[in-house]
Amino acid sequence: MELLKIASVPATTVPKEATVMEAINAMVKNRVGAVAIVEQGYLRGIFTERDVMIRVVQARRNPETTQMTEVMTTTVQTIAASASPHEALSQMLEQHIRHLPITGDKGQLLGMLSIRNLLQRRVEDLSHELEAVDAYLGADGIGG
Amino acid sequence: MELLKIASVPATTVPKEATVMEAINAMVKNRVGAVAIVEQGYLRGIFTERDVMIRVVQARRNPETTQMTEVMTTTVQTIAASASPHEALSQMLEQHIRHLPITGDKGQLLGMLSIRNLLQRRVEDLSHELEAVDAYLGADGIGG
Repeated sequence: MELLKIASVPATTVPKEATVMEAINAMVKNRVGAVAIVEQGYLRGIFTERDVMIRVVQARRNPETTQMTEVMTTTVQTIAASASPHEALSQMLEQHIRHLPITGDKGQLLGMLSIRNLLQRRVEDLSHELEAVDAYLGADGIGG
Repeated sequence: MELLKIASVPATTVPKEATVMEAINAMVKNRVGAVAIVEQGYLRGIFTERDVMIRVVQARRNPETTQMTEVMTTTVQTIAASASPHEALSQMLEQHIRHLPITGDKGQLLGMLSIRNLLQRRVEDLSHELEAVDAYLGADGIGG
């Protein structure tokens, strides 16, 4: 269940009746690039900042009145909580997506994983490795 | 000069008089998440899909009439073409940015590097390593 430790848990969510402006406000407030659209805990769609650019601004829709049902992606790629970070990254790169909702056995939404989450984790792992090397060198009196 | 082989070269650019809609059209056409604003070959600013969401839609600016000068970031983080991919990734993660313009000695714009470019390269490197291992196992008759 390593993915749930890396991901945003709980995910930022809005109901399917939410407007684009409400979805944007939720993304900006939580500093994320995507919201999950949920109904009774189940994932119904995803809406990202790229969708704001293409499906709203470029398509000249009104962000104050356009609802999630009109602009969300409903065939959402998801990943199981038991998958590895490597599997998640491969899936994102293959599918050209930056966000993967993490879902449970019954399709319930557990969290939202972003490429940024995965990279941040990689950097932390590398930092820990460096610290371990430093400690080893220090203990041996080689450091400096 | 490894970064220039990984990055988008040339970068997607617009003049500072371009409107938000023109910048969006350029981003969508070239499938990138940021445009560089240039004047006579020199970098003057950067504008990203996140800026579309926050500085245009949330700020209720008109994308048809708002020009780059009103919404671009002018204090732009850049990286030299001679830097390593690792340095570039560290800089992006530390600064919480997804794009780094690559500039030359005199500040001229050479290309645009994205986190996606770096990840794609990593995946290609790993694939080549796997192929090398496969070839080795095959040559030894261990494969299968």
